Amino acid sequence: MLGSTHGTLTTDSRRARVVACGEQRPGPVVHDRVDDLDVSGRPLYADVPDLARFFRPESVAVIGASDTEGRPNTGITRQLLAWAERVGARVHPVHPTRPSVFGIPCAASVAELPPGQVDLAVLLVADPLPVIEELADAKVKFAVAFAAGFAETGEAGAEAQERLADAVRRSGLRLLGPNTNLNAFERFREDLDGPAIALITQSGHQGRPVFSLQELGIRLSHWAPTGNEADLETADFISYFAEQPEVGAIAAYVEGLKDGRAFLLAADRAARRKVPVVAVKVGRTETGARTAASHTGKLTGADAVVDAAMRQYGVVRVDGLDELQDTAALLARARAPLADGVAVYSISGGTGAHVADLAAGLGLRLPRLSDERQAELHQWIPEYLSVANPVDNGGHPVGDARGRKIIDAVLADPAVGVLICPVTGPFPPLSDKLVADLVAAAEETDKLVCVVWGSPVGTEPAYRETLLGSSRVATFRTVGNCLTAVRAWLDHHRFVRDYRSPFDEAPRLPSPSFRKAQALMRPGRQLSEHAAKQLLRAYGIRVPREQLVTSAAAAVRAAAQIGYPVVMKASGARIAHKTELGLVKVGLTSASQVRDGYRELMDIARYEGVSLDGILVCQMVEQGVEMVVGATHDDLFGPTVTVGLGGVLVEVLHDTAVRVPPFGEDQAHAMLAELRGHPLLDGVRGRPPADRDALVEVVLRVQRMALELGDQIAELDINPLLVLPRGQGAVALDALVVCR
Amino acid sequence: MLGSTHGTLTTDSRRARVVACGEQRPGPVVHDRVDDLDVSGRPLYADVPDLARFFRPESVAVIGASDTEGRPNTGITRQLLAWAERVGARVHPVHPTRPSVFGIPCAASVAELPPGQVDLAVLLVADPLPVIEELADAKVKFAVAFAAGFAETGEAGAEAQERLADAVRRSGLRLLGPNTNLNAFERFREDLDGPAIALITQSGHQGRPVFSLQELGIRLSHWAPTGNEADLETADFISYFAEQPEVGAIAAYVEGLKDGRAFLLAADRAARRKVPVVAVKVGRTETGARTAASHTGKLTGADAVVDAAMRQYGVVRVDGLDELQDTAALLARARAPLADGVAVYSISGGTGAHVADLAAGLGLRLPRLSDERQAELHQWIPEYLSVANPVDNGGHPVGDARGRKIIDAVLADPAVGVLICPVTGPFPPLSDKLVADLVAAAEETDKLVCVVWGSPVGTEPAYRETLLGSSRVATFRTVGNCLTAVRAWLDHHRFVRDYRSPFDEAPRLPSPSFRKAQALMRPGRQLSEHAAKQLLRAYGIRVPREQLVTSAAAAVRAAAQIGYPVVMKASGARIAHKTELGLVKVGLTSASQVRDGYRELMDIARYEGVSLDGILVCQMVEQGVEMVVGATHDDLFGPTVTVGLGGVLVEVLHDTAVRVPPFGEDQAHAMLAELRGHPLLDGVRGRPPADRDALVEVVLRVQRMALELGDQIAELDINPLLVLPRGQGAVALDALVVCR
Repeated sequence: MLGSTHGTLTTDSRRARVVACGEQRPGPVVHDRVDDLDVSGRPLYADVPDLARFFRPESVAVIGASDTEGRPNTGITRQLLAWAERVGARVHPVHPTRPSVFGIPCAASVAELPPGQVDLAVLLVADPLPVIEELADAKVKFAVAFAAGFAETGEAGAEAQERLADAVRRSGLRLLGPNTNLNAFERFREDLDGPAIALITQSGHQGRPVFSLQELGIRLSHWAPTGNEADLETADFISYFAEQPEVGAIAAYVEGLKDGRAFLLAADRAARRKVPVVAVKVGRTETGARTAASHTGKLTGADAVVDAAMRQYGVVRVDGLDELQDTAALLARARAPLADGVAVYSISGGTGAHVADLAAGLGLRLPRLSDERQAELHQWIPEYLSVANPVDNGGHPVGDARGRKIIDAVLADPAVGVLICPVTGPFPPLSDKLVADLVAAAEETDKLVCVVWGSPVGTEPAYRETLLGSSRVATFRTVGNCLTAVRAWLDHHRFVRDYRSPFDEAPRLPSPSFRKAQALMRPGRQLSEHAAKQLLRAYGIRVPREQLVTSAAAAVRAAAQIGYPVVMKASGARIAHKTELGLVKVGLTSASQVRDGYRELMDIARYEGVSLDGILVCQMVEQGVEMVVGATHDDLFGPTVTVGLGGVLVEVLHDTAVRVPPFGEDQAHAMLAELRGHPLLDGVRGRPPADRDALVEVVLRVQRMALELGDQIAELDINPLLVLPRGQGAVALDALVVCR
Repeated sequence: MLGSTHGTLTTDSRRARVVACGEQRPGPVVHDRVDDLDVSGRPLYADVPDLARFFRPESVAVIGASDTEGRPNTGITRQLLAWAERVGARVHPVHPTRPSVFGIPCAASVAELPPGQVDLAVLLVADPLPVIEELADAKVKFAVAFAAGFAETGEAGAEAQERLADAVRRSGLRLLGPNTNLNAFERFREDLDGPAIALITQSGHQGRPVFSLQELGIRLSHWAPTGNEADLETADFISYFAEQPEVGAIAAYVEGLKDGRAFLLAADRAARRKVPVVAVKVGRTETGARTAASHTGKLTGADAVVDAAMRQYGVVRVDGLDELQDTAALLARARAPLADGVAVYSISGGTGAHVADLAAGLGLRLPRLSDERQAELHQWIPEYLSVANPVDNGGHPVGDARGRKIIDAVLADPAVGVLICPVTGPFPPLSDKLVADLVAAAEETDKLVCVVWGSPVGTEPAYRETLLGSSRVATFRTVGNCLTAVRAWLDHHRFVRDYRSPFDEAPRLPSPSFRKAQALMRPGRQLSEHAAKQLLRAYGIRVPREQLVTSAAAAVRAAAQIGYPVVMKASGARIAHKTELGLVKVGLTSASQVRDGYRELMDIARYEGVSLDGILVCQMVEQGVEMVVGATHDDLFGPTVTVGLGGVLVEVLHDTAVRVPPFGEDQAHAMLAELRGHPLLDGVRGRPPADRDALVEVVLRVQRMALELGDQIAELDINPLLVLPRGQGAVALDALVVCR
């Protein structure tokens, strides 16, 4: 096994890391055709832009270069020259009137640049639009536009940005920005090796802390400050980074997504390549969404949908930049786990209890160490201290040879995949030795060793030198961030192990149901309950036996055919609040009740001025769990599918789960598990368990409707869907369909 | 106004701080009688132990002193001698055989100590028990016991600890420990002034990071490592610290509480004195509770009850030690807020959007700055940047005189009580100036200025020197901890402003209901539904009109008196699951239905072998919101009161709220607001709003029952309590009472 003695935080390439853990590195992402579309017309594949020359250009033109002291462009020109000298690139200043800039001869215009030899143009001009065509003529491949004042400023700016994007599309070059900077060409540390973090930020300032991680010994390979994303967007960089061998994890700060589907396809690529993506995504609150929109001019998207989309593709969403740093660093550098058990080891029982509490609260598993292991540990740890896990050494054993033996014994336990040692306070006689032992032990294990250096001071040599000097130990400053990162690490590896891309199984052609459905659509109108149910039936969703009748006699005949008891409902295209208006009668058990019911419903409808297309006589279905299943349109992602518990739960608690198509059966089951009220499906108060499989089937059929009819449907709601006891299916008792 | 120009983080005493903010410093806590008890027999008052001589002893005896190299007692003796030299205290070594220790003559036994002159004895002996009586004879006031092996080790150890506690009680001295250390006598920085943190930890190791805050310039006044709390407990130290003028906040790390009531009384004292208490409390999870129990031998308590108890008395509960540090430091040092609005100011719109999102997610309010204020800011900030709040300066204005003007203008806004400036990445040309401006501005405002130094490196001079050198600016390392602390700070001041101690209004004498209730109690038995309802009636809780009958004819007479429709239920002492067994009939509308119902119920009861005391004929009450209200016994706090939403909500979601008596009407209302399903009470689907006041009244009456009957009742559950539309009251439809 390659690299098996190289410790957890490998310095090898990702290839070695993955191979070492017995996984196959996935091959390239292959699709039948690049222009594959799903049945909704959305792409199933996205090209990976080749950005090698963007990140490592050999020749850079600076449009608007300056060496006049005090001008902002001068600082940028100087920064670029320093970068060029470091990496050995050529710089071509361009300025209409200057003969030279910093002693380098200036081209008067882009047209004078050596054709086909410039990889990247840095646009320091106020309006980059006129330059784009010239750049294309000069066969420049990439451009970075600094200018602000586009979509982030409002409508006029958004239009200007659209014109810029059009020009870029026509030109064939790829543009970063506008409203961005040269973060991609900062001074990256070259002396660090091992898997790196690749960074994408829609705001340069927000990327700075991740960039600074290099000062703590964490390697960074790229930084893409995407700005307004008139052309190149976050998704492009995710796709590109996922293909780079040195990238161990992608860290992203995202305010708004330019294109939901592009993001999903990029996240899918990363998942297939087993490259973790960790992201801060602004927009959890109204306030945040509004502020972000005014910053980048992009929609943040309905947060619940964004959140679900990220989880569907294994993107780890975190809240703070500190969590982004710590989680991305761990995911980039730690090998795949050998076990999912967490062992907590400390010199204090109090610390162990506290960390165990927080870990369990996050859903981490602390396996009890075996009796044999505990006996082994008690060779070195007094009998009265608990070593079941957490392991409390009481302090003293750390000071001598026992210290290292204890660590090795805990790591040797097959149930343990990660050892977490919180060093709550520095006490050099003990903590220096403890830390040195942990660093040494980490060198000789494939398991993950995490140390939390809990002192708020952070200038201690044990932290600065010993811990940060180790590429094997994952060092944190807070227990919270350590546990969040460990949880994400375990989740990520579980996710990619089981991952199957839903795009491979997404429907490309309409189902036979689609043609039947077309006949029922009424553009711009709400369908009657009866028509809506026929639409559901067309997609194989069960509805009660029912007939639409227009006379009392027909109602009685229908009831006899359907079988008593029956339900009668007024049916019409515009009826809302049927129950409140008294337009529903349930539990009718005889012909005379049906006859009376018919007359009563007609009377009420007349009195309320409701126009009917008839009365529905329906089979009465009882004894199930009421759910709602629906499809809605999201501005960012298009059609989405929602499921929730019916009645008061959906009304008061908004207990719903959402997914973005395409998704498979596994995700439909996961939706149910997300519902706080899901135990209702298992049967409470002696009721039988409900038919989950039938419910999942309905969710998948609604997904199919959303994909095939998404653009024709404004709203689709089955409410309630009655899920019968296991093996008996699910029945849509009522449905609302509004056509676009 | 005193100190109004002294900045937010005052270096004055708490007195000045509070006065400066227009609050009255509360007078001492006064009670009628020290032995006041509430009607449940629990104390309404706790003495504050005088611990001045414990923390500043003039003379210390060391029992078991040693100067033999390599022995643990030698290290402790040495530490104590160093401490004594620093503070000018006398040390008396005691050892049966050594003539001297470190050159100081030894007493052979405690009896040889100068009587009445030793303030504190440090017990380094394996068994402190035999020494306690001798110490009392020598009139030693305080002792610290190091020995481990007590309640934390199991049953035998718990018994030994109980014997030790008994000896201490008899002796009259006060003991810290066992299983503790000399953290109270560490080297505290004397050069810091202003309000200090006082620290209480049940584990020495866990207190270390808060202690280390002194290295960042945060003053610490005391550290009480309470260990096993055989005598002195966390509550004693809270009470004592709340009375010390130099203490600005109390920080506590708590694994288990020794006595729930003592803790509440101490927290009440701190709330009256307006001294914030910030606590980590282990036991959120089963794992944590179990581990903590094995560490200190104390119960962690039912976490929901602990959590509620803390909130009732304004104790700020946090999860991590990093949050404990940051929150306690802010609460100790920041003045009372002048407004609750938060302004976010940064050099990047991205940072502003992100922080605004996180702040809003925590419930903080970011007021939109007035148009005038925005116009003022746009004098210095380009027009295209948003300054509504968050204020985005775009970077450049920081570098010159505009930087300070912007900060002052934001702070001058009356809606703004706190300015938060996240410095996400250090860029010395800008960030050094920004930080210097913030520090200078903080010197001249009464408002709170928070800076988040986001760089993970932390060795930058702007952080180490400028920020940590300021006692005016509150400096954080993560946005999350800053926002958590600011939220706690605003909450604390809101809480103490409105605080009225429930102990002042707790009932001391039984109500007239108590005597009626006594006649109904059946020790060791479950009451019949009828008897349980009579108990409720005795306490003024409305129940349906009902009669217990033993013949069909009586049932018909009863129904006529009660009025149709009626409900009939089997009644007996041991009936559970009445509905499932078919022992309830609802909606009976005629004498014949009642007669049939009676026979049917008797038949079922006979068939099921259920023994009845009769059939209840009850008024049928409909059209309300079903709730549950109950009382249970908590091991730590005694009686507790619970309210929840009925039906599926309580069954599946456990949507309940709990409080520890005594509590007032405000807390009963707060309980309802805590329920996730509480919008049901406001009326959904066109239903009328429910009678919240009546529900609150029932909760308070159940509290009275819990207080008066708590020791006689094992279980009390009203399920359902039907809360009728507003103005119509609430009716207990069924109740379960199990007597102890």
